[in-house]
Amino acid sequence: MRDPSPARVSDEAGQPAGLTRAEIISVGTEHLLGQIVDTNATFLCTVLAELGIAVYFRSTVGDNVRRVQDVFRHALARADLILATGGLGPTDDDLTVAAVAEALGLPLERNEEAWAHVQEFFRKRKRPLSEQQEKQAMMPRGSRMIPNPRGSAPGVIIEHRDKTIIFTPGVPREMKGMVEDSVVPYLRERGLAGREVIRSRVLRITGLGESAVEDRLRDLMRSSVNPTIAPYAHTGECHVRVTARGGDAEVEAMLARAEAAIRERLGNTIYAADQATLEEVVAKALATKRVSIAVAESCTAGLLGHRLTGPPGASAFLDGGIITYSAARAMAESVRRQAGTDLGIATTGIAGPTGGTPAKPVGLVYLALAHAGGTEVREIHVGTEPGRAGVKYLASQAALDMIRLHLLR
Amino acid sequence: MRDPSPARVSDEAGQPAGLTRAEIISVGTEHLLGQIVDTNATFLCTVLAELGIAVYFRSTVGDNVRRVQDVFRHALARADLILATGGLGPTDDDLTVAAVAEALGLPLERNEEAWAHVQEFFRKRKRPLSEQQEKQAMMPRGSRMIPNPRGSAPGVIIEHRDKTIIFTPGVPREMKGMVEDSVVPYLRERGLAGREVIRSRVLRITGLGESAVEDRLRDLMRSSVNPTIAPYAHTGECHVRVTARGGDAEVEAMLARAEAAIRERLGNTIYAADQATLEEVVAKALATKRVSIAVAESCTAGLLGHRLTGPPGASAFLDGGIITYSAARAMAESVRRQAGTDLGIATTGIAGPTGGTPAKPVGLVYLALAHAGGTEVREIHVGTEPGRAGVKYLASQAALDMIRLHLLR
Repeated sequence: MRDPSPARVSDEAGQPAGLTRAEIISVGTEHLLGQIVDTNATFLCTVLAELGIAVYFRSTVGDNVRRVQDVFRHALARADLILATGGLGPTDDDLTVAAVAEALGLPLERNEEAWAHVQEFFRKRKRPLSEQQEKQAMMPRGSRMIPNPRGSAPGVIIEHRDKTIIFTPGVPREMKGMVEDSVVPYLRERGLAGREVIRSRVLRITGLGESAVEDRLRDLMRSSVNPTIAPYAHTGECHVRVTARGGDAEVEAMLARAEAAIRERLGNTIYAADQATLEEVVAKALATKRVSIAVAESCTAGLLGHRLTGPPGASAFLDGGIITYSAARAMAESVRRQAGTDLGIATTGIAGPTGGTPAKPVGLVYLALAHAGGTEVREIHVGTEPGRAGVKYLASQAALDMIRLHLLR
Repeated sequence: MRDPSPARVSDEAGQPAGLTRAEIISVGTEHLLGQIVDTNATFLCTVLAELGIAVYFRSTVGDNVRRVQDVFRHALARADLILATGGLGPTDDDLTVAAVAEALGLPLERNEEAWAHVQEFFRKRKRPLSEQQEKQAMMPRGSRMIPNPRGSAPGVIIEHRDKTIIFTPGVPREMKGMVEDSVVPYLRERGLAGREVIRSRVLRITGLGESAVEDRLRDLMRSSVNPTIAPYAHTGECHVRVTARGGDAEVEAMLARAEAAIRERLGNTIYAADQATLEEVVAKALATKRVSIAVAESCTAGLLGHRLTGPPGASAFLDGGIITYSAARAMAESVRRQAGTDLGIATTGIAGPTGGTPAKPVGLVYLALAHAGGTEVREIHVGTEPGRAGVKYLASQAALDMIRLHLLR
């Protein structure tokens, strides 16, 4: 990838004494057939970075005893902590724990706490308990179970010599819950979390392209090694990721200083930091300022209303909308008048792929915002490359930004 | 993961003579920090399955010479073909090719074809060519370059003893283009593609829950080993994946037979096979049958109009819409009358998280479809668990399905 910065933060710096080296192992043939995208491994990396635990390798293997053992052997040779997901269920193909127990020379025994959990899980759901289900309670001697309130298969922790192996289910909801509820506290208690953490802050920009963002930040990006600063282009917006490594308070201070320097250069093109979406920011501003709005949509055809009502509480400010085919200025003024709202917002344009003319090409979008002080009209050209869905999305993005900027005045 | 079936197809069957064993390696510290989801590896797995090449392992490593070499050494010991992505760019952290060349004892030389490509890339974009860019043309002696029409870094193929190593960029668009344009033809020409392919067909079901689908297919799922049949739950729909392994014609016949058997049991709850979405199926049916429609949205607040206009050509049948707060039957009839369309569809309900009452709890949704023969009203309860976005989506899904089933009559 093109951004070299995070590498310098995590990989090229010397390894501090006592730093835990972790490896993530995803088990399941569905990964190797390309049938699912491995968001579990991504989630686990984020959690470990926040704990200051270094992840140097990730491995993926199918439901095959010999190959699972091969992957765990490599991992045990180069990591202190192994976090595995998948293959904990009741079927013949769920073989992760048994394969690793065999490789370590540990006999499998029924864990009574785990067995009670499995039985309870089936009783509560009034589902018949088959013999096969007992498998989920079979664990290597000396290991401990991790509760799984969201599914039938408990997790397993093996502490073997100086290594720790943690098994979690492959179902993302169960895995995430288990990691947050039990694995993170366990890693902290065991003292495996590092004194240094790696933490990121993402500043979200709209209305300014990636190259313009880069131009304004180039010297900062070059001179700053910790934290690193790197822009990423997304549809209709640009994110600047600041990544810092150090002690908890030190990292917070570094992130805050970098954010201040970036805000100085990008001003109110930054609509939020971290997780908030543009629609959430706009919905909050409308609700806080008690501004009502009505939408008239042609090229966005409902997407703008949909995004505005994504965050809760929209009925407090959204007083109606129409999907229509007409001119933007007239639409915005008419919907505002008819709904009796403070604002009227309208979108119209050519989403394509057909319907374009030399005078009105695909990707031409008009936006209008009618308010007490008059009506503003914006013309944007997004071209044909984003495709139909892209044109609709970019038009809704530009409309939300018009509302946001209006409310900033 | 819970579905054991694909494992049996790909992993437990004996390895046919001459089967190419592949390993996928993703290089980039951003993976290990959890900053991106690795869709590249998923894509490559799909491509290799279709070529009948077995993927037994996937590995991910950061931008670190020693660790990159470690991962490639393991891969060379257990695979015939290595497909790597990432770390081909011009910066210091792009070190994949140099690290592997060193591990193999091959000197780096400037590949003149690659260097011409890099120069041309910068000339065309009127960007200054820095000295650093030459790095992208440095390749191990005896290797060949792969054209990259979408970016600056060419790919590299090393044929070393009986092993083949292919390097592609980490930028998904560049990688996918290169694989489709050059890598797949290369693998076929070299005879690395297998005689047996692994291919899937996905049947898409709505209006029937996962457990009901399982109940109707249980005996088929149990008795069929090749192809395997497995259901997957998604929001508002269920997918049944049929995966077959064998010669090209044999696989097609197996998939067709399995599809026929499944259709016999699930009837018109199957709305499509493979990639088509529910909105695409509905839009096509409206356009083909020349049926016009208008939407009145309360709880979906634009999402239904948005989904109906996702596929191209919607202006031929969608004659308008309103976002309003009212009762579903009256909304559907009124929007149909006012827009003068064949159909009027309305959604209303409590998306939450607040606004629910004992009589009208969060997750209660009313749908109405007004047509020449009268107005149908449906009441559905999706509960609070899906959350606000889930309630909106499930309501739009049920509305699309009402239109679809009406058009089937």
